[in-house]
This record gives sequence, structure tokens and C-alpha cells, in this order.
Amino acid sequence: MAQQCEAQGVALRPHIKTLKSLEAAAIYAPLPMPITVSTLAEARAFAEAGYQDILYAVGLSPNKFAQVNALLNDAVTLTVVIDSTDAAAQLCDQAHQLDHPLRVAIEIDVDGQRAGVAAIDESLIAIAAKVATTPSLTFAGVMGHAGASYGCFDAVSRDQMAQQECQQVLLAAKNLADAGYPCTMISAGSTPTVLASASREGLSEMRAGVYATFDLVMAGLGVCAYSDIALSVLTCVIGHQKDKHWVLIDAGWMALSRDTGTQNHPLDCGYGLVCDEQGKILEGWYVAHTNQEHGVVKHRDGRTPDESFAYGTMLRILPVHACATAAQYHSYHVTQDNEHTHASWPRINGW
Amino acid sequence: MAQQCEAQGVALRPHIKTLKSLEAAAIYAPLPMPITVSTLAEARAFAEAGYQDILYAVGLSPNKFAQVNALLNDAVTLTVVIDSTDAAAQLCDQAHQLDHPLRVAIEIDVDGQRAGVAAIDESLIAIAAKVATTPSLTFAGVMGHAGASYGCFDAVSRDQMAQQECQQVLLAAKNLADAGYPCTMISAGSTPTVLASASREGLSEMRAGVYATFDLVMAGLGVCAYSDIALSVLTCVIGHQKDKHWVLIDAGWMALSRDTGTQNHPLDCGYGLVCDEQGKILEGWYVAHTNQEHGVVKHRDGRTPDESFAYGTMLRILPVHACATAAQYHSYHVTQDNEHTHASWPRINGW
Repeated sequence: MAQQCEAQGVALRPHIKTLKSLEAAAIYAPLPMPITVSTLAEARAFAEAGYQDILYAVGLSPNKFAQVNALLNDAVTLTVVIDSTDAAAQLCDQAHQLDHPLRVAIEIDVDGQRAGVAAIDESLIAIAAKVATTPSLTFAGVMGHAGASYGCFDAVSRDQMAQQECQQVLLAAKNLADAGYPCTMISAGSTPTVLASASREGLSEMRAGVYATFDLVMAGLGVCAYSDIALSVLTCVIGHQKDKHWVLIDAGWMALSRDTGTQNHPLDCGYGLVCDEQGKILEGWYVAHTNQEHGVVKHRDGRTPDESFAYGTMLRILPVHACATAAQYHSYHVTQDNEHTHASWPRINGW
Repeated sequence: MAQQCEAQGVALRPHIKTLKSLEAAAIYAPLPMPITVSTLAEARAFAEAGYQDILYAVGLSPNKFAQVNALLNDAVTLTVVIDSTDAAAQLCDQAHQLDHPLRVAIEIDVDGQRAGVAAIDESLIAIAAKVATTPSLTFAGVMGHAGASYGCFDAVSRDQMAQQECQQVLLAAKNLADAGYPCTMISAGSTPTVLASASREGLSEMRAGVYATFDLVMAGLGVCAYSDIALSVLTCVIGHQKDKHWVLIDAGWMALSRDTGTQNHPLDCGYGLVCDEQGKILEGWYVAHTNQEHGVVKHRDGRTPDESFAYGTMLRILPVHACATAAQYHSYHVTQDNEHTHASWPRINGW
């Protein structure tokens, strides 16, 4: 990802929401890189570790004002996002409580999937005007995220989505500049779109997150290879249902998450693909059903499990959605060359 | 649930897996009640709090032997379950490492949904024989769980499933007794079946878990009323997409879980039903989509959100599946009569 952004001449602002780990971020988002966070708890922990340029990429709500101010008091350059004149009005009303300037960006709706103002929406200028004229606030610019890229199954459609994402944030930035509100932050990105081909001219930065480990959703889209996936759940065979050719494992949805994000993919991986303990994919085997602490492993063609699935055998499950699977844990066990190291990396959970 | 079991003259062994909280269990599973756990981490924490009769209701795997022995050393009467001759062989081989006797029950497959031996399977006697003749092991009996009750949408089918669950564990117990292996534990249950009508004659105990708070799955089945649900996620309105009549909230799947267990119900609640801050259901409003930290709230008839959904408004979301939603947190904020108390109840997460 770093090479991709460097080749395109655009700064990378990694999103640390997948692993939420300082130790992992030291690899893919080393200091003094700017980062993106999904919670103020992440912002707090990363600020304490020395990260100084942080984008909180979820629309700010009034009840988070005290947490935001505490970060500013720790000399963090924090950028928050809003996407309505209502949010701008409340933020501006409360801004006098801030001890230091807060950077505010406007979220742009680039694909109709979630939050954000359309690039041509007239409220865009009204929001910028309100922010720019409020002491303690600094109008930073615009950011957009093409979540729709998770529905792009080939390179052509990903390239188109990447171009659309860039064009929409650039159009918004142009409209703002024309109205007298130039943008220093013009930010776009998702793992599939940043890895796609598109002109990035005019962007100030790109953002991506799940590339930290990749997962079966990304592999299913063709964004990575299955062998690129760097996160797995270690589990043990606890039984069988021989009539049904089932292998039962002690990893249910509590261990794997309830995410079934490959359900509409050409290859539905259920709750995860099955590997041996060394991480080699056991072709055709997947977690078909889960209860809280039970997983049911089956083969796609219904074949009978052999001795690779004997009672007590350790297996690894590749995650459907790394962000969701990782969220079920409070720390990671680190492996290198398929061997466990003694390292344990804590996660920053909660809000 | 306690009244239901008392009326039927059967002991209740609550499953504490939904809330995993000592403070919550003090209400519905007070000492010295026997309890059921889904992880050995729960067993450890509850043992330290004084619980002495604990059933670990997930098929034991060999790699958990040291944890099991540590519990026995703390004078816990621990019952583990197995469901195969392979598991029995490994357990018996390792049993000499145990410092105190371990109680072993056989899981009975009562509905073809998950783990367990069929009541008429000949391996049943072989497992019991192996366990009963191994020093350090005590053959305890049988247990079954009718997970299929989550597919029973009326009282008649629930009653039938409850009867089936009881009959299958009783049949297994009879077959074992006839072979010379009498069962002291004859255990059955799930929240829907324990609340149903069936003869419990011969059972030694019933188990249930999610009744601790109930959830939208249980309400959708008719097992409880929506007003019985005692768990909610407090969230804030962070924006709108006016063209689509969407309200955006800061509770995505990280806050609500990825569970969509009402998808096949007559009323699909998406990722949760929406209440005002006091917990009053706002009729027709539900969380239709989620991203990691964003939820999209819509009305079933597509109506435009009014001032009840203004930017900054606090809402509560009722959980689709309480076990999964609660698992996204490390503690609970306790309310009484819709007011926050200052109590915070920690969860016992992990394994």
C-alpha cells in the first residue's frame, strides 16, 4: 500500500481500525505517519504513543466534545468530520469550549452508500462557511470513502469506482475553493480503490485499512491472494457428525464473528476457510455454520473428513472480515514463519 | 425461569454465557446455584467467586486439560462433556494427570443441529464404559440442547421440541442405565424449550441462558415480549441522508454485532429495533444496514424521520441476539427505572 501511494505521489494515511494495535501499526503506519481512526479510544491510545496527526473518520456527535477537547489538550492535530448544517451549527455553538483549534473536514458522499454530503449539494458551502468563520475551528477540507468498492469484483469496476471516489471529492473541493473555502485536506480511499488504477492528481492523501491483514472478502474480490491473509483463528477439532460429514471445532461465532461478508461472492466462505495449523489452506473445507462456541466445518463437495481432521487436531480459520474477527479478541498472538513468537499485541477496544 | 423450573419440580442450572457477568448472575444465578459456562475463562472467574458446581457445555478438547485440572485443584465440581469414543480415549489416556476426579457427561444430539451422540447410537455405551472404568474420571450422565427451538415460531412447535429434547436425553439415560451406567446428570434445555410445556419427569436439571436479558430473536419467536428485553445499546444520531429518509447513528456492527438472526423471521429487525433514550420502542424504525461504526436507521414504510431523530439525539437499540451484542463490550452500564446508576458490571471475555 505504501508503494502504491508513493508511486502515485500521494501521501498515505492508514486507517488503524482493523487491528487497533500499536505494535501492528509500527509495521504499516510507523511514526510519524498520519493515521485514521474509527473511535476516539483509538485516537487516545495512538496519541499517547506519539501519533500527532489523527483523522477521526466517523461523523462527530455532540456527546464526544469533551473527549475531542482532551485530545487537543494533548497537542494532537485532530481532524473531525461532519456532513450537515445541523452538525455544523451545534459544533460551532460549542466551539468556544475548545482550548485549542480543531480541524473540521466535510464528509462527501461518493457512492450513495452511507454518510456524507453530495459534492454538488449546496449545504457544502454553508457548512464550510459556518466552520471557517468560527473561532477555534479550522476548515480542513473534504474526505470520502467508496464503500461501494466492496461490490466491485473485477479490476475494471474497481478502477471506475476509484476514479469516481477521487472525482467526487475533487469536485467538492473545487466547489468549496470557488466559494472561497480552499481545502488543505482532500482525502479519499478504501483498500480496493487505493489499490486500483486512477488519476490521483489533486488529492492530498489516500486512506485504507483492511490491507493491514487482508481477509476473505478482499481475496474474494481479487484485491489480494488468499496467501496474503495475515490473520487467523487457531482452533481445535472437538468432534464429528459422521453421517453428515461434519467436523466440529471450538471456534464458533464468538471466535470468528457473525460476519458472512462473502455470502454474495462467487465463492461463499461461510464463516471462514480452513487451514492446517501451519496455515496451509485445506482446499474445499470451510466453516459452514456457527453457534456461540461451536463451528461446523464441511467440504464443498460433501466429502468425508480424513485424518487431517481427527479429534484434537489444531486448525486455523482464515477470517471472512478481518475487522470483525479481530474485534472478538483483546490481543493477538504473533507468529513468524508459522512459528509462535512470545509476543502478544493488545488491541484498543471500546470507544 | 426460576418459577417455571420450580413449578415443574426440576432444578435450574443457568447458562451464564449471555452476560458473562458476576453481578448479573447474582440476580438470576445467585450462589450456591449450579451454573453452565461456555468457556473455561467463565468457569475460572465464577469459581473464584465461589461457584462450585460448573458444567462446561462445549465438547472438551485435549489442549484444555491443564485449565481443567487447575479448576479441579480449586475444589470446583466440574463437569465436562464429550461425544465420541475418540474423545473418551484421549481423555482417559490423559486422566492420570488429573489431581482430583473429573465428572464427564456425554452430549446427546437431540435435534441434528450440532454436536452430540444419538440416544440410540451404540458408541454411547462405549464412551460411558471407557469413562466409568478410568480412575480420576466419574461418569456423570447426559446433556442435550435443542438449538432447533430457535426455529419454532409457535407454542405448539416449541412444546413438541421441548418434549423431543427431554425424550432424547431420557432415552439415552435409559440405554446407559440398562447397560449398567446410571446417570446422575440428565440435563436438557434452551430458553424456548424450558419455557415451553412438556413433561420433565426424570430430568435432573434444566439449562437456559439468553432469558437473562432476552432479545429480538426471542421476542420474534414469541418466547418473550419486546418490553422484556433488558439490554440495549445507547447511541447518538450523527447525520441523515434526507433523500433516502435515513438516520445515521454512531452504532455500527462494532457496537451491535454482525448478528442478523431475525432475517428469516416474519419481522426482520435488521441489526436492531430503535427506541428513544428511555427505552420506548419507536414503532417501525430499525437498523437496516451497518458499517463498522455507522448504523443506518430506516422506517419500514419509508417515512421521513421527524424531530425525534434530530442530529445529536440519543437513542437505544434493542439487540437482535443478546449474546452477540453483549460480546462487543467489556462492561455494562446499569440502568434502573430508565435512569443510569453508577454501576458498571465487567464481562468475562476471552477463553
